[in-house]
Amino acid sequence: MFDVPVPDAAARAAAQERLDGLVKPLGALGRLEEIAAWLAAAHGSVPPRPLDDVRVVVFAGDHGVSALSAYPREVTAAMVRVFLAGKSGVNVLAAQVGAEVRVADLGVDWDGADVPASVTAHKIRRGSGSIDVEDALSPGEARAAFDAGRAIAREEGDADLLIPGDMGIGNTAMCAALVAATLGLPAAEVVGTGTGVDAAGLARKTAAVSAALARTAGRTEDPFERLTALGSACVAATAGFLVQAAVLGIPVLLDGVFSGAAALVARDIAPGAERWWLAGHRSTEPSQAFALKALGLEPILDLGLRLGEGSGAVQAVPTLRAARAILADMGLLADLA
Amino acid sequence: MFDVPVPDAAARAAAQERLDGLVKPLGALGRLEEIAAWLAAAHGSVPPRPLDDVRVVVFAGDHGVSALSAYPREVTAAMVRVFLAGKSGVNVLAAQVGAEVRVADLGVDWDGADVPASVTAHKIRRGSGSIDVEDALSPGEARAAFDAGRAIAREEGDADLLIPGDMGIGNTAMCAALVAATLGLPAAEVVGTGTGVDAAGLARKTAAVSAALARTAGRTEDPFERLTALGSACVAATAGFLVQAAVLGIPVLLDGVFSGAAALVARDIAPGAERWWLAGHRSTEPSQAFALKALGLEPILDLGLRLGEGSGAVQAVPTLRAARAILADMGLLADLA
Repeated sequence: MFDVPVPDAAARAAAQERLDGLVKPLGALGRLEEIAAWLAAAHGSVPPRPLDDVRVVVFAGDHGVSALSAYPREVTAAMVRVFLAGKSGVNVLAAQVGAEVRVADLGVDWDGADVPASVTAHKIRRGSGSIDVEDALSPGEARAAFDAGRAIAREEGDADLLIPGDMGIGNTAMCAALVAATLGLPAAEVVGTGTGVDAAGLARKTAAVSAALARTAGRTEDPFERLTALGSACVAATAGFLVQAAVLGIPVLLDGVFSGAAALVARDIAPGAERWWLAGHRSTEPSQAFALKALGLEPILDLGLRLGEGSGAVQAVPTLRAARAILADMGLLADLA
Repeated sequence: MFDVPVPDAAARAAAQERLDGLVKPLGALGRLEEIAAWLAAAHGSVPPRPLDDVRVVVFAGDHGVSALSAYPREVTAAMVRVFLAGKSGVNVLAAQVGAEVRVADLGVDWDGADVPASVTAHKIRRGSGSIDVEDALSPGEARAAFDAGRAIAREEGDADLLIPGDMGIGNTAMCAALVAATLGLPAAEVVGTGTGVDAAGLARKTAAVSAALARTAGRTEDPFERLTALGSACVAATAGFLVQAAVLGIPVLLDGVFSGAAALVARDIAPGAERWWLAGHRSTEPSQAFALKALGLEPILDLGLRLGEGSGAVQAVPTLRAARAILADMGLLADLA
């Protein structure tokens, strides 16, 4: 259904040959060498292109299960304003690596009348259904959100590297449900403390995810059905964004649990797309670890982050640039005096 | 003996208070928040100063035990030329973060007549003794090398952040011996494959370190005696560099096993100096893990690196800058609409 290109094996082999000839012991740059070869395959060249144009898209939306969070639902909309003001965590961390941040409101529960029209251009609905008792979206909304994410990836098609971010009170409960349904795991194994719920809050969250899984049992094998039943407009759009980036051959750095849940679904929709993704960092949410393991991805950073927004992935950008730089700029053993 | 200042507790507390008020869930930036508070304490200000002036000093030297390496002794001198040509791993990776690289020949086994005099200005001797059968240095050489490292730190005293690097065929065997002697560990637990020895090479290396430990048993409680018996001019200088950086109140990012071994000894010489050091990355050498655990340091990155040179630590510079940036640039929860 989706024509996902295969990264360039010849470029990967040429990169590996050059890496083996660099002025260092064989393999001494560890993970950096793996990433260098991966980037060479993605860009089809040795060295890969400079990663000058890096873009973060923060997919924002509200969830019917937002009452499970440590923070009130209204924070989602307030944070959209913070992104636009450039004062959020991901704004500050993206600026450190020269990455641009775009915020896309797919399902925030506000009218958003006073923000630039580009923010709400792809909006699907206000909030999503409460997955413990009802579907998150209609089937048509799930498709429309997925297509909106694809359109956003096309709009960012000039980027050298794309990063999906997220903002939404209730995100981690929704992600836990999606990951559990995809991998056949019980709620208790995937639900985490999110933005910081206490033990009673964790129990409520686990019960809600458990109820969502029971409610939708037997219905979620199809990835679009899964997005309809347990997802949201913002996660469905992120899945579309990830699929389209792969179709366009643009490498992607996944962020935390939200990226991971979206990526699991996206891979079911477009097998092979995962070849275009690296995992930027390890989140503290348990469902991310399950998602990354299933995707065969090992995170680059492990800094105990749980902010979302794309804030972890942007911090891995210097590692990708370093990986490119060793291929581009290091001397060769053969030139040793 | 050394007057090591204590990082500023009031600045640390003020940083923590600001971190708790930033527009994010409490603690959601994990390790970044710890590092931000640490930097604030080191610089005595909130936010800390920008880390614009970052300098790497590569301490180069040869070892009597160089035959234990997968590479010939001559590589050390050849690599000094590569550093000066800007083509080494650390040159390329330092350039990515705008850090300067200086190479200091403390004990390379060459005459170095054709390199700039500044490179050899602090030279102690050509190579060191073969620690399995003789002391590495004379007591006077160990002191002179330590003082040379202190002088180098003073020469770099304007830096916002210092990084010790290393180059020397035989380094990891020497470091394993120093760490084992400091912590009372058997050779088999600390010896690693270094630049890539095979099983037979590993056995030879373990036997040599074991012989060195047996030869010097009961003599190495004093840190200078340890440097004399089992060290080298380059590691003794690195210990002096680390002590003096702490005396000057300059934060340091440790690199891999060489930094770790030097830091263990430096802390014995100047207790409290370790408050000025962070561990940049986890090396694949087992003795580094023991050293960091004893120092109470948790590495920032874990990328499977084993190159030395300072190449791992420079890659953690963006994390420190990110930590500073959240304190300097993020908005406050109190300002949320």
